[in-house]
Amino acid sequence: MSLATLDVSQHPVLPQSSTTLFEAKAKKKVSFEEIAKEVGRDEVAIAAMFYGQARASPEDIQKLSDYLGIEHATLEKQLSGFPDRGKSIEMPPKEPLIYRLYEIVQNYGYAYKAVLNEKFGDGIMSAISFSTHVEKEIDKDGNAWAIITLRGKWLPFSRF
Amino acid sequence: MSLATLDVSQHPVLPQSSTTLFEAKAKKKVSFEEIAKEVGRDEVAIAAMFYGQARASPEDIQKLSDYLGIEHATLEKQLSGFPDRGKSIEMPPKEPLIYRLYEIVQNYGYAYKAVLNEKFGDGIMSAISFSTHVEKEIDKDGNAWAIITLRGKWLPFSRF
Amino acid sequence: MSLATLDVSQHPVLPQSSTTLFEAKAKKKVSFEEIAKEVGRDEVAIAAMFYGQARASPEDIQKLSDYLGIEHATLEKQLSGFPDRGKSIEMPPKEPLIYRLYEIVQNYGYAYKAVLNEKFGDGIMSAISFSTHVEKEIDKDGNAWAIITLRGKWLPFSRF
Amino acid sequence: MSLATLDVSQHPVLPQSSTTLFEAKAKKKVSFEEIAKEVGRDEVAIAAMFYGQARASPEDIQKLSDYLGIEHATLEKQLSGFPDRGKSIEMPPKEPLIYRLYEIVQNYGYAYKAVLNEKFGDGIMSAISFSTHVEKEIDKDGNAWAIITLRGKWLPFSRF
Amino acid sequence: MSLATLDVSQHPVLPQSSTTLFEAKAKKKVSFEEIAKEVGRDEVAIAAMFYGQARASPEDIQKLSDYLGIEHATLEKQLSGFPDRGKSIEMPPKEPLIYRLYEIVQNYGYAYKAVLNEKFGDGIMSAISFSTHVEKEIDKDGNAWAIITLRGKWLPFSRF
Amino acid sequence: MSLATLDVSQHPVLPQSSTTLFEAKAKKKVSFEEIAKEVGRDEVAIAAMFYGQARASPEDIQKLSDYLGIEHATLEKQLSGFPDRGKSIEMPPKEPLIYRLYEIVQNYGYAYKAVLNEKFGDGIMSAISFSTHVEKEIDKDGNAWAIITLRGKWLPFSRF
Amino acid sequence: MSLATLDVSQHPVLPQSSTTLFEAKAKKKVSFEEIAKEVGRDEVAIAAMFYGQARASPEDIQKLSDYLGIEHATLEKQLSGFPDRGKSIEMPPKEPLIYRLYEIVQNYGYAYKAVLNEKFGDGIMSAISFSTHVEKEIDKDGNAWAIITLRGKWLPFSRF
Amino acid sequence: MSLATLDVSQHPVLPQSSTTLFEAKAKKKVSFEEIAKEVGRDEVAIAAMFYGQARASPEDIQKLSDYLGIEHATLEKQLSGFPDRGKSIEMPPKEPLIYRLYEIVQNYGYAYKAVLNEKFGDGIMSAISFSTHVEKEIDKDGNAWAIITLRGKWLPFSRF
Amino acid sequence: MSLATLDVSQHPVLPQSSTTLFEAKAKKKVSFEEIAKEVGRDEVAIAAMFYGQARASPEDIQKLSDYLGIEHATLEKQLSGFPDRGKSIEMPPKEPLIYRLYEIVQNYGYAYKAVLNEKFGDGIMSAISFSTHVEKEIDKDGNAWAIITLRGKWLPFSRF
Amino acid sequence: MSLATLDVSQHPVLPQSSTTLFEAKAKKKVSFEEIAKEVGRDEVAIAAMFYGQARASPEDIQKLSDYLGIEHATLEKQLSGFPDRGKSIEMPPKEPLIYRLYEIVQNYGYAYKAVLNEKFGDGIMSAISFSTHVEKEIDKDGNAWAIITLRGKWLPFSRF
Repeated sequence: MSLATLDVSQHPVLPQSSTTLFEAKAKKKVSFEEIAKEVGRDEVAIAAMFYGQARASPEDIQKLSDYLGIEHATLEKQLSGFPDRGKSIEMPPKEPLIYRLYEIVQNYGYAYKAVLNEKFGDGIMSAISFSTHVEKEIDKDGNAWAIITLRGKWLPFSRF
Repeated sequence: MSLATLDVSQHPVLPQSSTTLFEAKAKKKVSFEEIAKEVGRDEVAIAAMFYGQARASPEDIQKLSDYLGIEHATLEKQLSGFPDRGKSIEMPPKEPLIYRLYEIVQNYGYAYKAVLNEKFGDGIMSAISFSTHVEKEIDKDGNAWAIITLRGKWLPFSRF
Repeated sequence: MSLATLDVSQHPVLPQSSTTLFEAKAKKKVSFEEIAKEVGRDEVAIAAMFYGQARASPEDIQKLSDYLGIEHATLEKQLSGFPDRGKSIEMPPKEPLIYRLYEIVQNYGYAYKAVLNEKFGDGIMSAISFSTHVEKEIDKDGNAWAIITLRGKWLPFSRF
Repeated sequence: MSLATLDVSQHPVLPQSSTTLFEAKAKKKVSFEEIAKEVGRDEVAIAAMFYGQARASPEDIQKLSDYLGIEHATLEKQLSGFPDRGKSIEMPPKEPLIYRLYEIVQNYGYAYKAVLNEKFGDGIMSAISFSTHVEKEIDKDGNAWAIITLRGKWLPFSRF
Repeated sequence: MSLATLDVSQHPVLPQSSTTLFEAKAKKKVSFEEIAKEVGRDEVAIAAMFYGQARASPEDIQKLSDYLGIEHATLEKQLSGFPDRGKSIEMPPKEPLIYRLYEIVQNYGYAYKAVLNEKFGDGIMSAISFSTHVEKEIDKDGNAWAIITLRGKWLPFSRF
Repeated sequence: MSLATLDVSQHPVLPQSSTTLFEAKAKKKVSFEEIAKEVGRDEVAIAAMFYGQARASPEDIQKLSDYLGIEHATLEKQLSGFPDRGKSIEMPPKEPLIYRLYEIVQNYGYAYKAVLNEKFGDGIMSAISFSTHVEKEIDKDGNAWAIITLRGKWLPFSRF
Repeated sequence: MSLATLDVSQHPVLPQSSTTLFEAKAKKKVSFEEIAKEVGRDEVAIAAMFYGQARASPEDIQKLSDYLGIEHATLEKQLSGFPDRGKSIEMPPKEPLIYRLYEIVQNYGYAYKAVLNEKFGDGIMSAISFSTHVEKEIDKDGNAWAIITLRGKWLPFSRF
Repeated sequence: MSLATLDVSQHPVLPQSSTTLFEAKAKKKVSFEEIAKEVGRDEVAIAAMFYGQARASPEDIQKLSDYLGIEHATLEKQLSGFPDRGKSIEMPPKEPLIYRLYEIVQNYGYAYKAVLNEKFGDGIMSAISFSTHVEKEIDKDGNAWAIITLRGKWLPFSRF
Repeated sequence: MSLATLDVSQHPVLPQSSTTLFEAKAKKKVSFEEIAKEVGRDEVAIAAMFYGQARASPEDIQKLSDYLGIEHATLEKQLSGFPDRGKSIEMPPKEPLIYRLYEIVQNYGYAYKAVLNEKFGDGIMSAISFSTHVEKEIDKDGNAWAIITLRGKWLPFSRF
Repeated sequence: MSLATLDVSQHPVLPQSSTTLFEAKAKKKVSFEEIAKEVGRDEVAIAAMFYGQARASPEDIQKLSDYLGIEHATLEKQLSGFPDRGKSIEMPPKEPLIYRLYEIVQNYGYAYKAVLNEKFGDGIMSAISFSTHVEKEIDKDGNAWAIITLRGKWLPFSRF
């Protein structure tokens, strides 16, 4: 199996923690799935943390530090602030895999809105009170399918 | 329950079929869920079709025509071409509900890529060999949660 | 006192309800404050509704219809769908008054984030579970000051 | 409580003073609230100053230097110029917390304009003769709410 | 002398009052200077009013109506709202004359800021408490020079 | 009085001469007005030169070198080329002071064009055969006003 | 020989005079070269006038009216204002022929600047005191070459 | 006479050869015209080569190396690849001189197309099989005029 | 087999000929392949002509008129001008099929350049002296593959 | 024959492997064709790999390392991650050669869509299950033609 790595020269505005974490991951040769199991969080959350998009709790920092062999003080300093989200990617995304996700929003955005509004009323699905998960499925013909689940709290617009 | 409607003056580049379909839906006062049951397709696919983002088969056209009371010839003419997708929405989306979906791609895009690459190798999750589904969940505290599932075929990059 | 009016040729993508409501308001020569009192909602919410940015409940529609002398069926048809928000304005705004609000976000955005994060932890102030209010203050030198209050529920990022 | 920090690699165009100040803050482990009390200014103003968006008076520089243990000459040199505002953030903001503020302007911009025009006449709310404040409220159900107050002088358009 | 006219097909988002006013001006064959004298305002203010960028007082409306032979009720209805400024022009401007003004800001923007800051301290020159005037000068060689004067109130940033 | 300074990290594409000149200015603690008097040019021209937007003659270089104590050879090398104008600022400007100037062009652009066309015929006001000047005025109530004068040669469009 | 025509639906913001002129040209089946000879101006100037980019003098209007059989009053009304230049084209141009001209500026822009600066000093080549001409050349191998000549007055930057 | 120079900090993405060549040119104090004579090419072509926009033949490299005193191996390594054109300039150009050229395309683009189409049929003027030349003309009143000639092969669209 | 149709409301800036041609095609229920055979041109060229992107010769117009039953005079008037290319599509394309082609250029652009430069020297592959063709292939597993061939003349950069 | 090289200063966001590979290629003075033969892949695939747009298998890395004389461990570390595609190029491309490919998509995009839809039904040509090839053809008149073949799997939209 191949592992996701980070080439800093391609991501000049990621936080320092990204470099620290990806280097340690490459050295230990572990996947996000393995790290996730160790830390006790979803692998997407772990990957998001590596890209500066999710916050690490003190326990997460401790476990990452232990498991990946990163000096605790360094990781704590780099990782204990509040994430400055949204900097990992230019929109529209040029990366083909990420573009396909973007295209789903572009093409089905209003369809989701219409269906959600009819099901829930006037409001939004939160991207904050939110979790997500990725699964792999092999159909009977041996084809692989990726299943991404998005689960967000429904927030009705306040009446004022 | 309220129903999703279309105000054409807000969507000047949607196809004519959108006007026809939304007007018939408003007249009959049915939800996408009800239409979907009648047509035998997912309600997101039906909503996408209403917004010109999914193709209708001759059977779909027949059923929509029957159920919504639209003259068959009219609907066939307007709906039997190939969808010119992507015109229903400006990106980045300004609509708060759709923006939240966009934000998920923006924030978790590279996390999805990293996790999918580690799980499947080099490739993409197709947005074409693709289906999606929306569900409503009520947790024990009475809070509503929206669950969106994305299921796409994994396409490995060709080696050449 | 002067009243806010709408010139449709300057806002081609607003919903039909905007034309209907602003015309009735101009005819009756009433302010948003007066309408708000009648309907029992905040005047900003009423103005937002006129611009297609807030949802009207059946009671709101009834009261608006009665008070502004708009045929109930017309208003119900135009106003009972789900708002397609975000279409009233181009960003960055060119209108000087609205630009000043935009400039506040541009200049103080990270300051708000830093202060809010320290006060509340990792999360956001909701713009959905949200209300806002405008007040006028005259200081002792006779100068007028506008006070805008934003009140949003704090949503912590989910841990997953 | 966690503290807001600055990762310079994510903000390459901030002034040098930002680095100096955030590093000293991280070392002393103090919040903006604590610094604000010490300096005698609002915590949002202090945070804005850290991000290069507000001017420091000679007294502010003295107090910051004393309290945060920064050499006075260094801070004076870095902080006594006129702020080059607006460089801390890309618009539209990608950071979810800041985006919510932006979204408020996007959705309610014309509503604010209409209400303010009716209340004050033709003019703008100044973003210069302006102050802002953040408060935390806990409602009876234990939910946290963020209250942001914007207070700007009303400037009528000159007649000429 | 030639007169400035308006071709509505080139300015689809100007308010209706622009059409009314420019048509009456073309019919009466008067310059902005002549109208300005009649109304008692600066000719730039009058021209701005024609483009929907300045507010007309009831007296202005009366005088314009009388002088240009426009039915008072029509003009009052179209012109008594609050201007929705900023819609007359796309930025960067493509029109060569307007581009030159834009270029002045682009090239000398920071020079103005530096000089103004040194002269006045931290603040801005208001574009609201503001007037402007255009003059023509013929030098001794017979060359024409345009002199534009901008006069704005200095607003110091509030300390909070 | 405070002096305008330059933080290079906020202006990475300014020419090297900007750093040299601003550093010498900060060291000598002189204003643009003082430098301008010494060099015999307008203070806006001097500030523009510091930002790489105006050309220095050999005499200017000599005087700047003498007055600011910069080695002549260094300054000559850095300052004797032809300015690569337009790089000091991103448009639309985010800096509030510069934005106000931009807003004047945005709102009054067509009004200036109309008035200038009527006064001068078909052509433009040159931004090249051009000078500008800033003055400070205190009105009887003690308020400060900034007066910016723009003076450009009128260039009629050639007939061909 | 084929003639250039105008399809208004592709140029919705051109002035009314463009429609009038192109229709008359199509009816009379004449080329810009023929019209230019008749009017006594360069064919590029004539074509520019048709696209609303050059001003017509009263004599031009008379000759165009006579030659193309357009009612004089109509043409005078539509054509005697000041051109609102720059609206005929979106930049970057998508039209392949126009893109090639754009590409020349993109690729050789700095080369022209360097050569012109060395030849003339600090200044610009005017696009206002400017004429242009197109010629056709057939080389000995029978290949056609287009020669475009640009001739603009050199304007040195004012010293102030 | 002054010479065009390069300040690398203003052009961070130019190739290394640009630095090498401009430095040697500044050291030898020669104009593009002089270099062009030496190398036997047009001065615009030479300047384009300095900005990485034209290819140098082995003979060009030899002559440049000899004349400018640059080590041959260095120049060969830096200059013998294929130019990555189009990186020297941001569009729309902010530099006033280059903007004027851009403005000519913007304003006269469709006029050129119409005239060229009528003269040559359906096709384009090549920007590849293309040469250009700059000349200086002094008219009888002593005014300087810049003449830029563009000469490109006419390429008819293929019929297929 | 289904046929490609045109919904004018989705393509407001296409030429009138597009409406005429697509309507006649829909009425006759013929594919581009069939029309191409009749006219004697490639089906991509025919489709491009329908979208206003390729020129029709007098013979093409005659054949299209005959075959599709369009009045010759109408078609000649609408179709005999020079195409105003590039207006059929917004870039980046939102349509998924067209985006895939765009993505190929985005991802392989420099690879093509490198390979073509090594094979042909410094120059470009013409998009004008150019033809293209589409084929369908069914592999042994029954999968369909689309083969697009691009054939363009190589144009070397002129040396001048 | 000349070889394609890489000037890193012009491509600051390419991965480190690009520098490593292009330097080794320049040192060994081999073309992509030669490398392709050695590695057993298409030369476009090899070039894409050099630009970080295609994945290298362990065998590719071994062969590249052997043939180009790059330390295996270095190349493996830099090249064995998953490509972060799309970063090699800004769109619209400014490079003339790449722009021509982009222009083909811009002008013929809808024509391809129409023809492909009629040939294959509703779907897309994959850019992932995709290969491409470049060939050189010399016609009887000695002109060179570039032939680019694109071959992608047809993916029908899923029905759901």
